[in-house]
Amino acid sequence: MSTAPAQYTGYAALTEEKGKKLELEKWSYTPKQWTEDDVDIKVDCCGMCGSCIHTLTNGWPQPTSYPCIAGHEVVGTIVRAGSRTSHKVGTRVGVGAQGGSCLECDYCKQGLQQHCEKGLIMTYQGTWEDGSVAQGGYADFMRCRGALAVPIPDGLESETTAPLLCAGVTVYAPLKRFNAGPGKRVGVIGIGGLGHLALQIAKAMGAEVYALSHSASKMDDAEKLGCPRENFIVAKDQDEVRKKYNKHFDILILTSSSNDIPLEGLYLPLLRNMGTFVICGLPEEKLPSMYGQMLVYKSINLAGSLIGGSSEIAELFDLALKHDIKAWVETRPMSEVTQTAHDMHAGKSRYRYVLKN
Amino acid sequence: MSTAPAQYTGYAALTEEKGKKLELEKWSYTPKQWTEDDVDIKVDCCGMCGSCIHTLTNGWPQPTSYPCIAGHEVVGTIVRAGSRTSHKVGTRVGVGAQGGSCLECDYCKQGLQQHCEKGLIMTYQGTWEDGSVAQGGYADFMRCRGALAVPIPDGLESETTAPLLCAGVTVYAPLKRFNAGPGKRVGVIGIGGLGHLALQIAKAMGAEVYALSHSASKMDDAEKLGCPRENFIVAKDQDEVRKKYNKHFDILILTSSSNDIPLEGLYLPLLRNMGTFVICGLPEEKLPSMYGQMLVYKSINLAGSLIGGSSEIAELFDLALKHDIKAWVETRPMSEVTQTAHDMHAGKSRYRYVLKN
Repeated sequence: MSTAPAQYTGYAALTEEKGKKLELEKWSYTPKQWTEDDVDIKVDCCGMCGSCIHTLTNGWPQPTSYPCIAGHEVVGTIVRAGSRTSHKVGTRVGVGAQGGSCLECDYCKQGLQQHCEKGLIMTYQGTWEDGSVAQGGYADFMRCRGALAVPIPDGLESETTAPLLCAGVTVYAPLKRFNAGPGKRVGVIGIGGLGHLALQIAKAMGAEVYALSHSASKMDDAEKLGCPRENFIVAKDQDEVRKKYNKHFDILILTSSSNDIPLEGLYLPLLRNMGTFVICGLPEEKLPSMYGQMLVYKSINLAGSLIGGSSEIAELFDLALKHDIKAWVETRPMSEVTQTAHDMHAGKSRYRYVLKN
Repeated sequence: MSTAPAQYTGYAALTEEKGKKLELEKWSYTPKQWTEDDVDIKVDCCGMCGSCIHTLTNGWPQPTSYPCIAGHEVVGTIVRAGSRTSHKVGTRVGVGAQGGSCLECDYCKQGLQQHCEKGLIMTYQGTWEDGSVAQGGYADFMRCRGALAVPIPDGLESETTAPLLCAGVTVYAPLKRFNAGPGKRVGVIGIGGLGHLALQIAKAMGAEVYALSHSASKMDDAEKLGCPRENFIVAKDQDEVRKKYNKHFDILILTSSSNDIPLEGLYLPLLRNMGTFVICGLPEEKLPSMYGQMLVYKSINLAGSLIGGSSEIAELFDLALKHDIKAWVETRPMSEVTQTAHDMHAGKSRYRYVLKN
């Protein structure tokens, strides 16, 4: 078992200028100061998330701090385990979008660290207690809180499991919270990194699964992912769809970050009474304004949902093992991260790139 | 026990012109055709709701059908019980805003008739199966589905119970759905017909109760209703309130129909992670538009809620009996309905008028 070196080396956007061009270069940094709540992880592979592209190109409202190593769907092996963690050296673990939290509040104790009372420390761009900026998983090693590193059961393959750590749990958490299961109809809006997992997960939970997409191009994929062909809805003609699927869905889950969100014109009419519309994507523009009546008359929920905590990741791993949930991935060498980021940015992933050391 | 006459007599707005002036006059009508699912009720008293004023003055998007007898917080005695109902002549019952539903769908079977798959028949202005327009409780008698007439336990006074049938259950249903109870902080926005009951109900459910109001004028009342003085928040200086009560509430419940709903600027920041903002009022304008991020980052629910069903009304009666929940009412003779409607319209009620035969 190799131990972590004094400096970790990853692929960083060194400046905003390079970040905007998605030019990533080898860069070494000194990890945050060690505490006994931490673990060091030798990275095996790391999924590429839309958020990585947004962050590298400084596309969020919160400005990116450069140099920046992205990557928050990290699978690797523990090479050093803090005495206040429950980990042992040699365990295979996964780390999602969150690398740290207070560990002490009620949420943290329940493994719902994404709701930590004191705020999240994101896997990359988070700020550690020593003032250093967290760096992500497009690297050889990573340091984070042990509580956020979730053991991966034997039987799950690293590459197809990595995307469960962010994309997967982001859709699993609200599907669980809003009781997706037998007798419920779940519509997944957008078939991409999140959506292709949402279809598999909702089906595994026992729900009747539908896909809503702008074109029929992903119908074959959706079928393989658990959505029967007759449940694939091309949401082009809103009047027609609204008529056919009026009050049809218990849950609609928006997995894209598209700014085109026809709440009043399409999505809310499709919900049953007491139905829930979940927003998982992060559109850059404001939501369309609407009448409160649209929510009141059918007692509808409009819900946001942010990633998931360690307990939810662990549950998702169990579900994945039981129901053979796998991200559809194209695995590439970590050294091809720049080209991969360009391909991701161009929308070429079907449905996730995973970079392997 | 008197039986119902062939024609029922109430106080109606005979025309739109008279409705707009809130001029109500005695008017007799033939009730809907009897079915064995129905009951006839001799009206004892009836609360006056903001919706009555809106409907009488043709203030909703859905135009009012005249003549119109309003009133949907009806307490009375059953004088005729259909063979397919569970009622007996002589039982004291209450009827809220809904007088009928399909009786057969899953929701109706659970006593959540407000979500009836086939749609609601409102207590007034609803359309019965024989095509007649439903008339409300400002009258001597009323006919409706027995399933929507809920027995009132002995020990509850008719006048102070009537407003529970609409105002009360409208706030009770979402407080229950979103788990108001011990350890939860509930903020009631607006202290009026709905709000003064929401304070009592949330407290009876075991929650820590706060009131949010535009001025301090109702602080004494709120205290008597169960909100400690230190929990009375004058929501005038938004910056100050946001700072002091940042992430403080599990549930905020909007009970007014004011168009001024500062979601991004005030209310959503006040919610804890996974908190819920409930809209019970029906503002005439659209909700302010907002960033989806406001919901996503804290996994917040924005929820609408529409009245409550017979099972929820029955639960609320039990809660009221146990915790001495009473609407604050001013009781007036039914013959003073016109003056009372004017006073209600002028915002003089503290906090509900009840009209008594």
